[in-house]
Amino acid sequence: MVSHALLDILIVLVAAKVAAELMERINVPAVVGEILAGILIGPSGFDLVENSDVLRVLAEIGVILLLLEVGSVLELGELAAVGKASLSVAIIGVAVPFVGGAAFGELIGMSGEEALFVGAALTATSVGITARVLGDLKALTMAESRTVLGAAVADDVIGLVILTVVVRLATSGSVSVAGVLWIVFVAVAFLAITAAVGIRFIPGFFEWIARFSKSSGTLVALALAFTLAIAELAEVAKLAPIVGAFVAGLALGRSAASDRIRRELQPVGHLFIPVFFLSIGI
Amino acid sequence: MVSHALLDILIVLVAAKVAAELMERINVPAVVGEILAGILIGPSGFDLVENSDVLRVLAEIGVILLLLEVGSVLELGELAAVGKASLSVAIIGVAVPFVGGAAFGELIGMSGEEALFVGAALTATSVGITARVLGDLKALTMAESRTVLGAAVADDVIGLVILTVVVRLATSGSVSVAGVLWIVFVAVAFLAITAAVGIRFIPGFFEWIARFSKSSGTLVALALAFTLAIAELAEVAKLAPIVGAFVAGLALGRSAASDRIRRELQPVGHLFIPVFFLSIGI
Repeated sequence: MVSHALLDILIVLVAAKVAAELMERINVPAVVGEILAGILIGPSGFDLVENSDVLRVLAEIGVILLLLEVGSVLELGELAAVGKASLSVAIIGVAVPFVGGAAFGELIGMSGEEALFVGAALTATSVGITARVLGDLKALTMAESRTVLGAAVADDVIGLVILTVVVRLATSGSVSVAGVLWIVFVAVAFLAITAAVGIRFIPGFFEWIARFSKSSGTLVALALAFTLAIAELAEVAKLAPIVGAFVAGLALGRSAASDRIRRELQPVGHLFIPVFFLSIGI
Repeated sequence: MVSHALLDILIVLVAAKVAAELMERINVPAVVGEILAGILIGPSGFDLVENSDVLRVLAEIGVILLLLEVGSVLELGELAAVGKASLSVAIIGVAVPFVGGAAFGELIGMSGEEALFVGAALTATSVGITARVLGDLKALTMAESRTVLGAAVADDVIGLVILTVVVRLATSGSVSVAGVLWIVFVAVAFLAITAAVGIRFIPGFFEWIARFSKSSGTLVALALAFTLAIAELAEVAKLAPIVGAFVAGLALGRSAASDRIRRELQPVGHLFIPVFFLSIGI
C-alpha cells in the first residue's frame, strides 16, 4: 500500500514536470499540460495511476498551498478597491451560465428541476484554476486579476446559495428564506471574521514565532498548520476549503515573516500543486 | 475523508513543533520530543489522531527525505574511508544483541525457535533514528557519525540475512545456503550498482536539468522522483527503502545543483520528517 502510493507520486511528479516543461516551450500555461498529463496517466488514459485517498489528500494540500501563496501576495486593501467590480463580475458570471443552462435544459425537453440543476452546475468558477492560470501568466497583482480572483471567491458564496436553493427545491419542494439567509450569513461572517481577526493578530503572532523559535522548521510548519485550520473552518461554514486558505494567505502576507514563509513554502508548492491539477484528469 | 486527513496533519504539525521547541530549550534532541508527542496524540494517548494510510505515506516520504538529505551531505569517499570500522561496528552491533537476546530467551524457558526470533528482533538498527539524532546534534560529517551511519546501512543487509535464515528455519526447518547467498548478492549488488551508476551519471543529469528547465519546480520535483525511484528499487532488492534514499542522496550530493536541491527540499523535510517520528508513537 505505502510503496504503491510512493510509486503513484513518482509517476505524477515526472508526468507533471515533463508536461510543464513542454508547455512552457510552446507558451501555453503549464497548468494545461498538467491537466492533460493527468488524463494521460489516469484511468481514462494509460491507467498508470489511480485516484487514491493519498493522492486526493496531497492534491488538496497542493491547492491549499496555491491559494495560500496567491492570498499572501495580495493586499486586502487592493482587493477591496476592486470589490464592486468583482461583485459585478461574480453576479454576471453566475447569472449568465445559470439562466443559459436552465433555458437550454428546458429547450431540449428536460423537466424544470433537471434544467435548474444544469444551470446550477454551470455556475461554479474554479478558484484553483483561476489562481493558477493568473499565476502562470505572472499577472496576479494586476487590477484585472484581482477583480477576477475576488469574483471567484464571491462566486463560491453565490454558488453555495444557488446549490442550496436548488437542492431544497428538488428534495422538499420549497425553500425557507430564513434558511438561505442563514447560510449566506454564516459564509459572509466567516469571511469577514477570519479576515479581520487574521489580519489583526496573525502577522504579529508569526513575527513572534520567527523571532523566538529555536527549531528552523517551526515557522513553515505552523504557517501551514494555521492555513489548514482556516481551510477546515471554511468547510464548516460550507465554503470551499481553498477560500479559507486564500484568507489565511491574506493574513500571513502582512507579516514581516511573510517573505521567509513564502520562500520556504514555494518548493513545497512546486511538489504538491501539480498533484492537484493532474488529479483533475486522474 | 480528505478533510479528516487534513485535520490529522494539522494536529501532527502543531504537536511536532511544540515538542521540538520544548526539547530544544532543555538541550534534548528534538526527535525525542517528536516521538513523545506522537505517543501523546496517538491512540495510546489522547487519541486525537489515528494511524491512517495517508499519515503512513507522509511519514514514509518524511524519512526518505531525511535519508536523502543525510546522503547528500556525505561523500562516498569519506564513507569508504571508514568502511572497515563501519563493518566491525555493524557486525558487533548485530552479533551482541542477537546472541544476547537468544540466550536470554533460552534462559527464561522459550523454545529454541522463539529464542532465535527474540535475538533476530533485537538486531535491527534504525537508520532513521541514527540519521536524525546525529543531524540534530549537527555531527553528521564527523568520522564517528559516518562510521555509525555506514554501520546502520550495513546492518540493514545483515539484518535481512538473519531474518531470512530465522524465518526459513522456523517455516521449513532448513536453510539453503544458495538462497541466503542470493539474497546477500542481490542486496549488495543493488548498493554497488546504484552507487556506481548514480554517482557516475546522476550529477550531470541534474546539472543539465538545472540549466535547461524553464519551470522553477522541475529540479526539486525530479530530484524527489529520482529518490523515490531508488527507494522503490531498494525495496525490490528487499532492503529498506530509506537505504535507497540514502544512496540517491549520495549521488545527488555530488551534483553542482545539489545546493539548490538541498535548499529547496529542506522546508519540505521540515514538514514531513516530523510526521515520520510522530508516527512511531501513533
